[in-house]
Amino acid sequence: MTKEFTFKLRVYSEDTDSFGIVHHSNYLRYMERARLEWFLSLGQRLDHWIAQGILFVLHRAEIDYLAPARVYDELEIITRVVSARRVSVVYEQTIRSAEKKDLIFCIGHITVVCVSARMRPQVLPELIVRGMTDDN
Amino acid sequence: MTKEFTFKLRVYSEDTDSFGIVHHSNYLRYMERARLEWFLSLGQRLDHWIAQGILFVLHRAEIDYLAPARVYDELEIITRVVSARRVSVVYEQTIRSAEKKDLIFCIGHITVVCVSARMRPQVLPELIVRGMTDDN
Amino acid sequence: MTKEFTFKLRVYSEDTDSFGIVHHSNYLRYMERARLEWFLSLGQRLDHWIAQGILFVLHRAEIDYLAPARVYDELEIITRVVSARRVSVVYEQTIRSAEKKDLIFCIGHITVVCVSARMRPQVLPELIVRGMTDDN
Amino acid sequence: MTKEFTFKLRVYSEDTDSFGIVHHSNYLRYMERARLEWFLSLGQRLDHWIAQGILFVLHRAEIDYLAPARVYDELEIITRVVSARRVSVVYEQTIRSAEKKDLIFCIGHITVVCVSARMRPQVLPELIVRGMTDDN
Repeated sequence: MTKEFTFKLRVYSEDTDSFGIVHHSNYLRYMERARLEWFLSLGQRLDHWIAQGILFVLHRAEIDYLAPARVYDELEIITRVVSARRVSVVYEQTIRSAEKKDLIFCIGHITVVCVSARMRPQVLPELIVRGMTDDN
Repeated sequence: MTKEFTFKLRVYSEDTDSFGIVHHSNYLRYMERARLEWFLSLGQRLDHWIAQGILFVLHRAEIDYLAPARVYDELEIITRVVSARRVSVVYEQTIRSAEKKDLIFCIGHITVVCVSARMRPQVLPELIVRGMTDDN
Repeated sequence: MTKEFTFKLRVYSEDTDSFGIVHHSNYLRYMERARLEWFLSLGQRLDHWIAQGILFVLHRAEIDYLAPARVYDELEIITRVVSARRVSVVYEQTIRSAEKKDLIFCIGHITVVCVSARMRPQVLPELIVRGMTDDN
Repeated sequence: MTKEFTFKLRVYSEDTDSFGIVHHSNYLRYMERARLEWFLSLGQRLDHWIAQGILFVLHRAEIDYLAPARVYDELEIITRVVSARRVSVVYEQTIRSAEKKDLIFCIGHITVVCVSARMRPQVLPELIVRGMTDDN
């Protein structure tokens, strides 16, 4: 079984639009917050990796929108790694209601690639991959 | 040959992040602006359709990130319909540099579904489909 | 002595710009989040008031920018009421580093007015004013 | 009489919130877009000044909110300099409806300070001040 990380947040009015729902672009922001918090929870610091010339770049995002979240809702983002290759990793991120766990707002598949400062592919730091999967 | 719509915009500092590039979530916003402007250019008004109980809801987004756009860049978004079914339409949207046309920042495939106010699938208004494709 | 409410948040890359700092517009968003969380912490619900035709509308904002916050910083927002009149309330909100408490990023003075659904001035609900000041 | 610069934009759903109006933080973004476009219209390039170690930093913002703008509204931002000192300049920026010119949504007074890369006050480039005022 793979590891997963749960991150909670509240929807604020800044996140919603005039249709009364969370603007679809903001789920990508929520997902990035969750990946970052997972990263930090493993004791990793992005600036440490950046100083070593290792960057993590978004390569592809797929999002399925299932139901609209609304202002002041509390959301839960469940993040897990579904595929880890030499230079890239694919996250599956499910955003659901923190109260009604079976109310899923959207599901994302996010591919992150590891590159050098000159944008050349780099091998993913093993420390990170191990912290996020069960390959250890 | 299918129709296409070109929309231009400038990247402002609000759109970029501390890595010096456009935040990946904002390309979704740029794409929505382009779809809306196309819609308006056809003489359509969203409030007209909403008043008739016809809503256009984002169902799925796929984005491939190819190169990062930077602050004050001028971008061009080319939008066309790649598939139109009874209740849904898939747009392909290419975001490129307005100056160097072969510099493509990202490509999105956006599925929009037509629903009623109660979120039941609705047949896409023919007027709109015709205005955006060559089926006329 | 007046009451105050402390709210913490982390700066994410979505909040920063290409100058490497939090975009100045986002401090207004942080301040609104803090006011809302204070409100909720008092057991108040905005939808309850809205259902009664009582809205809280931003009337004026003054922000002094003192130092730039950066990506992944942890911030603390201290909110207190500096003036409560019949239909309006002025909040002072200080945003500082959660680690170095004397590093202040900005200070805002935010005037919120209570209005009816038809935008007529309304007397501020006493329950709310009392929860946020020491007039009780 | 002083010079002024008019910049137009459309409100998109990303800019609005669940109350159906433009989120108050976004007027600051609109004002920055207008200042930047004025700057560019004078043939200035920010990267040119940055390369010379001259930065323009927001020091203070005062915004009076008069009426709410709504989704798809076309706005007009009128920008003029109301005070130019050695190291700082104050802009007055009025955001109004492009259709009903007397419908004013908000008025901002924005103080920008000129600093070096080490955040020391710098004398404002005369070229810029002259382009934006009538002191020439």
